[in-house]
Amino acid sequence: MPANDRTPVTVIGLGAMGTALAEAFVGAGHPTTVWNRSAEKAVPLVAKGARHAGTVEEAVAAGPLVIACLTTYDATREALEPASATLAGRALVTLNTGTPEGARRMAGWAEARGARFLDGAVKNVPTAVGAPGTLLYYGGDKGVFDTYERTLRVLGGDTVHLGDEPDLAALYEQAVGGLLLPALLGFFQGAALVTARGLTAGTLVRYTVKWLEMIASELPAIAEEIDSGDYTRPRATVGIFHQGIANVPQLGREAGIDVSWHLPMHALLERAVADGHRDHSISALVETLRKPE
Amino acid sequence: MPANDRTPVTVIGLGAMGTALAEAFVGAGHPTTVWNRSAEKAVPLVAKGARHAGTVEEAVAAGPLVIACLTTYDATREALEPASATLAGRALVTLNTGTPEGARRMAGWAEARGARFLDGAVKNVPTAVGAPGTLLYYGGDKGVFDTYERTLRVLGGDTVHLGDEPDLAALYEQAVGGLLLPALLGFFQGAALVTARGLTAGTLVRYTVKWLEMIASELPAIAEEIDSGDYTRPRATVGIFHQGIANVPQLGREAGIDVSWHLPMHALLERAVADGHRDHSISALVETLRKPE
Ligand SMILES: NC(=O)c1ccc[n+]([C@@H]2O[C@H](COP(=O)([O-])OP(=O)(O)OC[C@H]3O[C@@H](n4cnc5c(N)ncnc54)[C@H](OP(=O)(O)O)[C@@H]3O)[C@@H](O)[C@H]2O)c1
Ligand SMILES: NC(=O)c1ccc[n+]([C@@H]2O[C@H](COP(=O)([O-])OP(=O)(O)OC[C@H]3O[C@@H](n4cnc5c(N)ncnc54)[C@H](OP(=O)(O)O)[C@@H]3O)[C@@H](O)[C@H]2O)c1
Repeated sequence: MPANDRTPVTVIGLGAMGTALAEAFVGAGHPTTVWNRSAEKAVPLVAKGARHAGTVEEAVAAGPLVIACLTTYDATREALEPASATLAGRALVTLNTGTPEGARRMAGWAEARGARFLDGAVKNVPTAVGAPGTLLYYGGDKGVFDTYERTLRVLGGDTVHLGDEPDLAALYEQAVGGLLLPALLGFFQGAALVTARGLTAGTLVRYTVKWLEMIASELPAIAEEIDSGDYTRPRATVGIFHQGIANVPQLGREAGIDVSWHLPMHALLERAVADGHRDHSISALVETLRKPE
Repeated sequence: MPANDRTPVTVIGLGAMGTALAEAFVGAGHPTTVWNRSAEKAVPLVAKGARHAGTVEEAVAAGPLVIACLTTYDATREALEPASATLAGRALVTLNTGTPEGARRMAGWAEARGARFLDGAVKNVPTAVGAPGTLLYYGGDKGVFDTYERTLRVLGGDTVHLGDEPDLAALYEQAVGGLLLPALLGFFQGAALVTARGLTAGTLVRYTVKWLEMIASELPAIAEEIDSGDYTRPRATVGIFHQGIANVPQLGREAGIDVSWHLPMHALLERAVADGHRDHSISALVETLRKPE
């Protein structure tokens, strides 16, 4: 332990996010060693008190905890390869975006080199790193998480271990993030509908914000239905949505827009009705998703 | 004007919502006449001070402002038909759910009977009626809205006139509400992914709530892009989403769930890329929706 009781940290990858991570450690008084493929990105950090390692091997050797934030897992392995022998016995934490499959491959690579592995995700922008409300979640070696939790918490006050499997953070990224595109498409379609009538998309914003708040407020009850498998006390039924979606083609024709992305959603509702879910909660659709045709 | 300076109001239809509307008017001191097909639903309201009309014609004759909240426009016309002659010169406001087409047909019917017409939507649950933050928006006769705005505001402090066309409230219902099903499906898919791994849907809730807040915070910038048609300063590109969606089939296979509802979204992204939007903001998808294949 250094005199100031702060764990030494190594940060590999000094892009927008990696730089923010390193800055947070420096700011919190951790001896911080940095390395980046393009060395010039280390200059502002060195000015703030970070130590710049000349090679990735030297960077890894600097301490027990190595945090990598590169574009992908492939890039991470490529960059760390020269430090392979040095990784043994250290904790490696990756914080890039990727698939669960990619995270598992990364974990296997780390394990083969004797490193203990944790994969995480920063659920925010670089400027939010270090704030009390900033969320980071991790999956993988619980021992690593417990040993370094205080240090990891420097990156965001809302720091969570999801479970022992190294692909859980990547899985949650997909499970949570997967709502974004369909929700945005819903907004884009609304924008196309009102702009076709000479009104602006801007007029939709405040109503949609309220609507998103309503959806957020319903999620605990919806999750409860899914986790209990009891869909018999509906707040909104499959039947209501099934009825509602039938109006979409007419809306599309009137506005001259493409609404065909609703077709498989219509089909899912049809299947749910056929399975006897008409009067059940809309969350019964999770059962339909679990039963590929 | 009655002594207490409150406009007399007639409420037709005393379901969950109609009852809440009538209660709000009674509570605010408006002379309130009510009518419902099943007369017994008027009893609690009469106890609170409403006047119960024996026929729909008598109800309509009781005042200048008639508010109907039945299941559908068809039901509304059926119920009001016997009062056809009495509607002339009065203001008729419908507050049921329906399509823009249905609202236009309703407006035509009201016009043919000499009534001035406004169609609105209550963007909340019955228990929220009367609260300062409760939103109701209206489309149709601006004169009716201006004359009765103070009275209509009894139903919710956030009362808005969208424009002169009688189908605008129904259109906004679809434009705003259309985000719900795809967003829910996104959540259901996330739930199917994590529950396939033995974790609960409940664990997703707080992350998804944060995610919805993030989406809400991005909407003003997104609407701005759509209204200006300038997609060249992306916060997230079409290309990023196009890359991301390619991982979905593998996720589906791993969890044994149906992810086929993403196929047309994938196709939309492909078309957007083909149209040169790869490095543009994801909101450029609105241009793709506007160009049916
Ligand atoms: N920025 C955000 O808002 C944000 C938010 C949440 C998550 N993330 C995730 O965080 C990760 C990093 O994002 P970022 O915004 O920091 O990206 P970035 O600014 O583009 O930086 C990418 C980093 O990866 C390095 N790199 C890429 N390929 C490499 C290779 N083959 N060998 C060595 N180094 C390589 C780059 O080195 P050079 O400088 O030498 O090119 C650079 O340090 C991504 O997975 C991203 O999805 C970002
Ligand atoms: N409840 C909500 O949370 C909510 C929120 C926003 C919007 N809305 C909308 O408000 C409208 C009313 O909803 P609600 O919840 O009050 O529905 P509800 O409780 O089911 O009441 C339906 C009303 O319509 C009447 N009705 C139906 N068909 C009729 C006919 N042919 N002739 C005469 N009366 C007829 C019913 O009369 P009887 O009593 O004689 O059957 C009853 O008064 C719907 O369009 C709904 O979508 C409701």
